[in-house]
Amino acid sequence: MSELKRQTELVETIVLKYLPDPEDRHQHTVIEAMNYSVTAGGKRLRPLIMQETYRMFRGQDEVVEPFMAAIEMIHTYSLVHDDLPSLDNDTLRRGRETTWKKYGDAMGLLAGDGLLNYAYETALKSFDLIEKEESLFDTSPETAYSRYQSCAKALRILADKAGINGMVGGQCLDVEASLNNMTLTEEELLFIHEHKTAALIQAAFMIGGALAGAGKRQIERLERIGYNIGVAFQIRDDCLDVIGDPAELGKNTGSDEKDEKRTYVTLHGLEQSEADERRLTEEALELLEGLPGKHDFMVELLMSLLGRRN
Amino acid sequence: MSELKRQTELVETIVLKYLPDPEDRHQHTVIEAMNYSVTAGGKRLRPLIMQETYRMFRGQDEVVEPFMAAIEMIHTYSLVHDDLPSLDNDTLRRGRETTWKKYGDAMGLLAGDGLLNYAYETALKSFDLIEKEESLFDTSPETAYSRYQSCAKALRILADKAGINGMVGGQCLDVEASLNNMTLTEEELLFIHEHKTAALIQAAFMIGGALAGAGKRQIERLERIGYNIGVAFQIRDDCLDVIGDPAELGKNTGSDEKDEKRTYVTLHGLEQSEADERRLTEEALELLEGLPGKHDFMVELLMSLLGRRN
Repeated sequence: MSELKRQTELVETIVLKYLPDPEDRHQHTVIEAMNYSVTAGGKRLRPLIMQETYRMFRGQDEVVEPFMAAIEMIHTYSLVHDDLPSLDNDTLRRGRETTWKKYGDAMGLLAGDGLLNYAYETALKSFDLIEKEESLFDTSPETAYSRYQSCAKALRILADKAGINGMVGGQCLDVEASLNNMTLTEEELLFIHEHKTAALIQAAFMIGGALAGAGKRQIERLERIGYNIGVAFQIRDDCLDVIGDPAELGKNTGSDEKDEKRTYVTLHGLEQSEADERRLTEEALELLEGLPGKHDFMVELLMSLLGRRN
Repeated sequence: MSELKRQTELVETIVLKYLPDPEDRHQHTVIEAMNYSVTAGGKRLRPLIMQETYRMFRGQDEVVEPFMAAIEMIHTYSLVHDDLPSLDNDTLRRGRETTWKKYGDAMGLLAGDGLLNYAYETALKSFDLIEKEESLFDTSPETAYSRYQSCAKALRILADKAGINGMVGGQCLDVEASLNNMTLTEEELLFIHEHKTAALIQAAFMIGGALAGAGKRQIERLERIGYNIGVAFQIRDDCLDVIGDPAELGKNTGSDEKDEKRTYVTLHGLEQSEADERRLTEEALELLEGLPGKHDFMVELLMSLLGRRN
């Protein structure tokens, strides 16, 4: 089994471990819908990046796990709300019915709300893990305080990159553009890519670093790496909407063309897009070299995205 | 000017201070829609309760302010999403158009998401205020750590009471009941009231206490007070849907009857409902007596809810 496959399975276990239990409760339907969305699979790219960044700076440790699950919940809630009839009206994702298609649009809305909120409930569990660890090793109050601060810093990054100055902000311009049939400028399109897609990938790198005690300059470098990887990822998505195979992708292609949507590919052409995807990735790998720890798996992970087919 | 009016105006200023600035940005529409929803007015009950509980335990202090704004944002996001066509399909709230009616349902959805996420961004600012305060007074790391812990505790309460085990959980059963024309049992109706309405009012009391350093038993008592006040508040809402004046309420009445919805009033009758509202409030005031600090304004605030007309 490849290291990527092995790590993805490990991450899968961690994400599942933090999902709520539907049990026999009055709110079991919304919990089922939340879990249906999260367990639909996917690359688990954000938690993989976060865990590996944390390892580079600090090694293996449980404290990062709640944030790994949390970022995947936020990514998933954004897909669940995107798919709703009032936004993209999509019925198929990752080869199965979208959440609202299966549970109705009222429950799709609530499942998204539930996931976003549960992401914060989950990330906050890192504080408990730190408290447990501190009392276990009977560390000094200075150490305890400083680890608590790193957790607060990670929460701030998550909230900032997920919200109106990050993912939701990008989503907003994207929605306005389609509602008003706007022809996006290159700058506007880049704003959408940076915010809607790259912000959460930046958060994955930055939170991994922040939680592990990385310094300010190192976190800024992680932010730049995340920017490059995030924008490259979105360029690839735009390419796949043209040249991808619906069976491999688990979703329909050609939707951008059908919607006459301006994308990186319509602006720059396929060849230039693929060249830019490669350049952004290579720049990210160069930036990575200035960071501590072993980089073998991070390089493998980032290279696996380049030219991906789904 | 009555003390209640004066305090409400103070709280209003604090809530507005923490709203995002739309400026001239690509995401200005979603920010405008968020601010439109929050500035629609309302009683500001949750931040009022939170501030007064904090005062009882610790006195006047800036650290509670971000949480006061945050809880109002969460309350508002829940109304914005509730009003959407896929849920209640309401067009009028607090005497003006609902958010989706004014900005379209795609932007209504995003404004709700933006508000929920921004609530956490905002609450996290309490950590900054604590850091500033600690460095200002050059306190011991033990003190700094313990204040940080109280802030983490407040965040946990907020996330728990706003999510699937709180507000979203209550909303879920309420939605399922209307979609499936379920006749609610008394126990199910109470579950909805406890979760959809009381949970966030409990959070207001509990966060005020937790942030101010209240002990475990005191926070449990605050939770019970919040339960009583929250359920009494919802009973009053059910009464007002029957006997309220639409002009005073700023929304349409009779919707429960029209929807053949089972409410506290349909289950117990108007007279019993009003008696229960009073009993729950009086019990809360008795519980309050066991807590430290001055209670004059808290009593005035809670009594102002009893038999309210809007």
